[in-house]
Amino acid sequence: MGLTLLSDNKMFNGSQRVYSHYSEACKCDMTFGLFLPEISSLEKVPILWFLSGLTCTHENAMTKAGSQKWASEKGIALIFPDTSPRGDSVPNHEDFDLGQGAGFYLDATTPGWSNHFNMETYIKDELSTLIFDNFNLDQLKQGIMGHSMGGLGALNFGFKNQNRFQSVSAFSPIANPTESDWGQKQFLAYLGEDKAIWNDYDPSILIDKYGFHKPILIDQGEKDSFLKLLMPSSLSNKFEHNKTLGQFRYHSGYDHSYFFVATFIKDHIEYHAKILSN
Amino acid sequence: MGLTLLSDNKMFNGSQRVYSHYSEACKCDMTFGLFLPEISSLEKVPILWFLSGLTCTHENAMTKAGSQKWASEKGIALIFPDTSPRGDSVPNHEDFDLGQGAGFYLDATTPGWSNHFNMETYIKDELSTLIFDNFNLDQLKQGIMGHSMGGLGALNFGFKNQNRFQSVSAFSPIANPTESDWGQKQFLAYLGEDKAIWNDYDPSILIDKYGFHKPILIDQGEKDSFLKLLMPSSLSNKFEHNKTLGQFRYHSGYDHSYFFVATFIKDHIEYHAKILSN
Repeated sequence: MGLTLLSDNKMFNGSQRVYSHYSEACKCDMTFGLFLPEISSLEKVPILWFLSGLTCTHENAMTKAGSQKWASEKGIALIFPDTSPRGDSVPNHEDFDLGQGAGFYLDATTPGWSNHFNMETYIKDELSTLIFDNFNLDQLKQGIMGHSMGGLGALNFGFKNQNRFQSVSAFSPIANPTESDWGQKQFLAYLGEDKAIWNDYDPSILIDKYGFHKPILIDQGEKDSFLKLLMPSSLSNKFEHNKTLGQFRYHSGYDHSYFFVATFIKDHIEYHAKILSN
Repeated sequence: MGLTLLSDNKMFNGSQRVYSHYSEACKCDMTFGLFLPEISSLEKVPILWFLSGLTCTHENAMTKAGSQKWASEKGIALIFPDTSPRGDSVPNHEDFDLGQGAGFYLDATTPGWSNHFNMETYIKDELSTLIFDNFNLDQLKQGIMGHSMGGLGALNFGFKNQNRFQSVSAFSPIANPTESDWGQKQFLAYLGEDKAIWNDYDPSILIDKYGFHKPILIDQGEKDSFLKLLMPSSLSNKFEHNKTLGQFRYHSGYDHSYFFVATFIKDHIEYHAKILSN
């Protein structure tokens, strides 16, 4: 599988790169950002996945979240995948929350979408294989985080692949999609009418099904204008009842933007680093 | 003069706002970003101006430079002006380095441009008056910094207004515009053929004319693809010969991007804070 280097910018002594490659899972070219900290030894470095939200590409978190400083200090690599397949040959929808830019990190099963919209397989299998084959990353030290739709993705991947991801965190995740318009609409389109399949992509259901045996960190702004769609309380209530799950923090005055993410990203990187450096 | 609040996002306990207003100097609506740190007293806070480079709006540095964390810690406000007048009624040029997005922080004198392109007066008089009238900012504690064309602007404002700006810094400034295609082209268009006027906007000339009696901080990437246009050595040579001017730092491997700016922004904010908090 060929990787094409699109850009390479030195940043905090490390290297912020953008690559493209052809994806078998998505049947199109895909782009991702990769931050590699300065390597002072031949030792493999831990990798932290950052999954982005609706409308984002690989670029938003890479340029706005302010994560690289802390990843550099902790010696952790960061990967910023795109949020969906892209291109003229890929199906799309006029709404911003369906189709391109809105992959929901699932494998679609419906005829209209299933040929391209396979972000779960893309992230979990194809892109993973690609980066571990090509870079000096430690497959045994992986964390995953995300924002909004990417927070949903991070939690779902985390709950369903507990041997792979040692640490999981999220900003403003879509917390209960089977009960929300951010979920029902997309799951019906991508997965069809069988709601048993939908449950496999809902963190508030998966957390009961699988449990999670390491602390999770979730941050949610109280002034987030999407609270009714995100439904954080479906998940945060479970944290109330089970303190071992970790922290679900609400922050007064903060909204859904990258200004919020940037404010607390240091906490998240340090949370992951503490677990991944063990 | 009326200010319209376009957005307000909480960030690092402070408030990242965007305002628009009608500008008499530019004869159009202008937009700027303003970061206000959390106010714990009635005391006025210092203000640090960030002037952006070619093609940028008020938004680039505000979202990509990572400055607010450090400004918040130091209790300093940040202002991010636009880089030129904007709009359908404002002259433009097909080149990205002339016209809208390329104001060069000067007052144009030529017929084609002088009605709108008055960024020097806009920044120095109009926008200054507006913010000190409307916010609890300390007019006696002002620093100025910028990137690329904005670095040029910051140095020019700094040298020519030494009583106003106590601290001056720049990333990758256009350092000698009267000798560069980034300068000659624009000065001819905006200022006409009288090169005596051009000298008033060239930091490598102004530093000799006015001197600067506080240390300046300038950072330049050695892998910057615009080195021939920026001409940093015209200015850094003067620092070599006069150590009291401050630091002109070259950084191996770094380029012209905001990834470079973000890497060293902490040093800049701390440099300004040290002077402004005296």
